[in-house]
Amino acid sequence: MITSGKNQQIKNLMALIKKNKERNNQKVYIVEGEKMVGEIPPSDLVKVYFSESYFNKTMNKHLDYEYDIIKDSVFDQIADTNTPQGILAIVRQREYCLKDLLANREPSVMVLEDLQDPGNVGTIIRTAEGAGFTGVILSKQCVDLYNPKVVRATMGSLLRMPLFIADHLEDTIKELKDYGVKIYAAHLQGSCYHYEVDYSQSGVAFLIGNESKGLTNAITNLSDGLIKIPLHGNVESLNASIAASLLMYEVERQKRNK
Amino acid sequence: MITSGKNQQIKNLMALIKKNKERNNQKVYIVEGEKMVGEIPPSDLVKVYFSESYFNKTMNKHLDYEYDIIKDSVFDQIADTNTPQGILAIVRQREYCLKDLLANREPSVMVLEDLQDPGNVGTIIRTAEGAGFTGVILSKQCVDLYNPKVVRATMGSLLRMPLFIADHLEDTIKELKDYGVKIYAAHLQGSCYHYEVDYSQSGVAFLIGNESKGLTNAITNLSDGLIKIPLHGNVESLNASIAASLLMYEVERQKRNK
Repeated sequence: MITSGKNQQIKNLMALIKKNKERNNQKVYIVEGEKMVGEIPPSDLVKVYFSESYFNKTMNKHLDYEYDIIKDSVFDQIADTNTPQGILAIVRQREYCLKDLLANREPSVMVLEDLQDPGNVGTIIRTAEGAGFTGVILSKQCVDLYNPKVVRATMGSLLRMPLFIADHLEDTIKELKDYGVKIYAAHLQGSCYHYEVDYSQSGVAFLIGNESKGLTNAITNLSDGLIKIPLHGNVESLNASIAASLLMYEVERQKRNK
Repeated sequence: MITSGKNQQIKNLMALIKKNKERNNQKVYIVEGEKMVGEIPPSDLVKVYFSESYFNKTMNKHLDYEYDIIKDSVFDQIADTNTPQGILAIVRQREYCLKDLLANREPSVMVLEDLQDPGNVGTIIRTAEGAGFTGVILSKQCVDLYNPKVVRATMGSLLRMPLFIADHLEDTIKELKDYGVKIYAAHLQGSCYHYEVDYSQSGVAFLIGNESKGLTNAITNLSDGLIKIPLHGNVESLNASIAASLLMYEVERQKRNK
């Protein structure tokens, strides 16, 4: 059992929770909580850590993976949540190439430009899986995909959804076009409503911009069309994850009714 | 200018930011930030507070409302955000009765049972205005409507949307039914998909349950039908504000195409 906060593994766990750079150097990230740790594919799992009390209460069977037990007071110190459940894991980062997101005959992809809110990014990944989308592309300037708040908001979808971080978003969008994917920018200056477009005839990608600045012109100009979500009252825009979800489920609706 | 954190007004502002009870005793709440303060109807505005540097930079004209200036270091101490903009206001709570939400010939209402996440509640209110809904009803056990995180997430819609806090949610739902409003429960055991129902023929209300427990049986049983949002992959549920938004915009789509 690990009993000291000065233990090398504890220091490493804390660095992996707090530091983007450390996560990306080691190509791993941290997953917390019983439910999501339970969903980690064995091939992605590096090691599980239990708090002492959680282990004694729950783990009465032989475990066929690498684990360690941490004294409760030390465990509570490292966990990112206010009410740690007593279980966390180090997980391997998956590496996808763009083709992995386009394997489907009619790919459907969300493209996120510089999104900064971890809740938005995590929720979009969760909803993308729910809507049957084939992948999510993030510009390099988005919040780190393995930030604990992003990980939590994905509710496990991070373990399953094909994700691609684009070093050069413009080039990646051009590649999508080469694959025959139609590109729509969610834009307040859209010329038609999002449900007036027929998405059922080809692959589709939606461009979603930064929470406060929206899409850059360079990215918007790559799109095949600007669409907008109807806004009543005095609402100027919707939350980015809400807008993204409405678009994704409109595609889902159309493809089901095809 | 107020220069001390011990000033009575400062103490009151801090209590209004932190304490639900204080907000409800005084029937006011706090709005922060330039944009949202700018949207406060004059009749709702009690008083505005500026940080000294914000006032000197921005306010070079005569102001026709009550205000005070606070020394920067004291202002930063009381603001709820990490990067305070230097402007906040005390705003009167509006009191609506249920009929205010049903004034429309075909009312459309969200009913939230025991939602706890302030971001979800605020985002639902914002999206409700965007979708053209006529009101949002919250069970008394929901997170406080005037919690600063709820206020912020509404992005101003809190100043405009008719909202009703139900002391007895079951009674309120029965009243909705008496008005001829069709009640649909968003439920994982739904018998059909949300876009398979015709919402264009009458008033409509959707019941959304607590983030972890879902709807209680007592509330679910009051509904005219259980609907579900299609879920692909291994997703068990969507975020509450995402689910609510998909339902609201499906109504918007159908009513527009009517």
